[in-house]
Amino acid sequence: MSRRRRVYEGKAKVLYEGPEPGTLIQHFKDDATANNNQKHATIEGKGVLNNRISEFIFTKLNDIGVPTHFIRSINMREQLIREVEIIPCEVVVRNVAAGSLTKRLGIDEGTPLPRSIIEFYYKNDELGDPMVSEEHITAFGWATPQEIDDMMALALRINDFMAGLFLGIGIRLVDFKVEFGRLYEGDMVRVVLADEISPDSCRLWDMRTNDKLDKDRFRHDMGGLIEAYQEVARRLGILFENEPKRRGPTLVK
Amino acid sequence: MSRRRRVYEGKAKVLYEGPEPGTLIQHFKDDATANNNQKHATIEGKGVLNNRISEFIFTKLNDIGVPTHFIRSINMREQLIREVEIIPCEVVVRNVAAGSLTKRLGIDEGTPLPRSIIEFYYKNDELGDPMVSEEHITAFGWATPQEIDDMMALALRINDFMAGLFLGIGIRLVDFKVEFGRLYEGDMVRVVLADEISPDSCRLWDMRTNDKLDKDRFRHDMGGLIEAYQEVARRLGILFENEPKRRGPTLVK
Ligand SMILES: Nc1ncnc2c1ncn2[C@@H]1O[C@H](COP(=O)(O)OP(=O)(O)O)[C@@H](O)[C@H]1O
Ligand SMILES: Nc1ncnc2c1ncn2[C@@H]1O[C@H](COP(=O)(O)OP(=O)(O)O)[C@@H](O)[C@H]1O
Ligand SMILES: [Mg+2]
Ligand SMILES: [Mg+2]
Repeated sequence: MSRRRRVYEGKAKVLYEGPEPGTLIQHFKDDATANNNQKHATIEGKGVLNNRISEFIFTKLNDIGVPTHFIRSINMREQLIREVEIIPCEVVVRNVAAGSLTKRLGIDEGTPLPRSIIEFYYKNDELGDPMVSEEHITAFGWATPQEIDDMMALALRINDFMAGLFLGIGIRLVDFKVEFGRLYEGDMVRVVLADEISPDSCRLWDMRTNDKLDKDRFRHDMGGLIEAYQEVARRLGILFENEPKRRGPTLVK
Repeated sequence: MSRRRRVYEGKAKVLYEGPEPGTLIQHFKDDATANNNQKHATIEGKGVLNNRISEFIFTKLNDIGVPTHFIRSINMREQLIREVEIIPCEVVVRNVAAGSLTKRLGIDEGTPLPRSIIEFYYKNDELGDPMVSEEHITAFGWATPQEIDDMMALALRINDFMAGLFLGIGIRLVDFKVEFGRLYEGDMVRVVLADEISPDSCRLWDMRTNDKLDKDRFRHDMGGLIEAYQEVARRLGILFENEPKRRGPTLVK
């Protein structure tokens, strides 16, 4: 591996300078954190699985016309991406009550929501990623009203696509978190999906057993995280590099 | 006083059945609570002052065309109001950082905000009045998009009016909380301002000294609450029933 300049090291990934200006290499580590960094562990193989799952989903989203930062896979842990200016708002889409929503609004985990709900969180570890509304985002200039509209429209398309994708393999898409960035091209700028989509950033429940196939296994010390992520990759038909054929759909009623 | 049916007893007020259908009597108690009821005290005279200040502001808002539930004053502690269906969303308008915003977003108290910010809180004591966004409000049916628009437009008008009113008497309107309700008239329904506007529900800082003239004196055990509320009433020219003439403006630069 040649010497590369490290641009940023986060909780789960490292960004290196890419081969061309405006590109980056996104490297998936095995680190897991929860509760705003209070809990930390290394889980061997997680980075490889997340990289694989995320590149798969980003590729498919590109295919249906959702613009993303993804360019191409580099190796088991790394992908080439376009450098963007990250909008400091984590966008959460919820279909079923879980996590912080259950506590904040007193709704039992597992309750289907009357409709999909989009939430924004200000991406700031020191403040514990506080929930914010469009009012805060525009008043503090974190994003423009147009960018908020773009993020919401893209988030809903991503939700539709992923709900369908996971339904097809017997998994309920409970909620997920995405990040968007500004991609500058000449004097154009547009909002594209950035960061990752993986069992680290989604809640995925087996439709038959309700087993959690996501990072909640780590948050709640349930064990079996790698096995769960492998199960997701297996059902997506992408677990083994040398066995890339998709399984037939296993639609659960 | 004739026997009256008590419709609701809250933390700071009691609602009695009014003389006509569709009316209520709003009675201001001397009770003060903070931290979602964890702190409680009785402060003699507070109810009288809040009733007086609130009826004054509601009357003036009516005058400029902001619809309110207020009908008329009954006595020192009571006012006749129209019964409405309270929309369970507390609407907060902030001009200067204070209170929960400083903690949530890491902004020093007293920092002027880039523009006025409207926040919604789900009115639910058990849950500690959690902050919510328009997404939650519409998804759970607490208010329609049109009602949210109406509440925001009215909240901004109220903010403009009160900012001017208090500026004229040397007081900075830092933030305030209002409640709105649905007023049914025949088969018409419209959103009107309800509840109260008083030093219990506003942050009011003396422009010269920065003294707090509001309920933060109780929240932070600073003492002098009645004196502060009296000072607000005195500057508004409404402290003594038998001396109702307004003082001239004392505009502070
Ligand atoms: N295309 C991109 N361009 C620039 N930064 C990106 C891009 N995609 C993701 N990022 C940022 O890179 C970081 C990824 O590493 P991660 O471990 O998730 O960091 P963090 O601990 O900040 O969440 C995140 O801060 C994310 O916002
Ligand atoms: N016009 C109105 N019609 C019906 N209810 C009202 C009206 N104005 C205010 N209310 C409600 O009456 C109660 C006032 O009492 P308060 O002590 O403030 O109660 P709380 O402890 O619920 O805040 C509040 O719950 C408020 O929402
Ligand atoms: Mg991250
Ligand atoms: Mg109240």
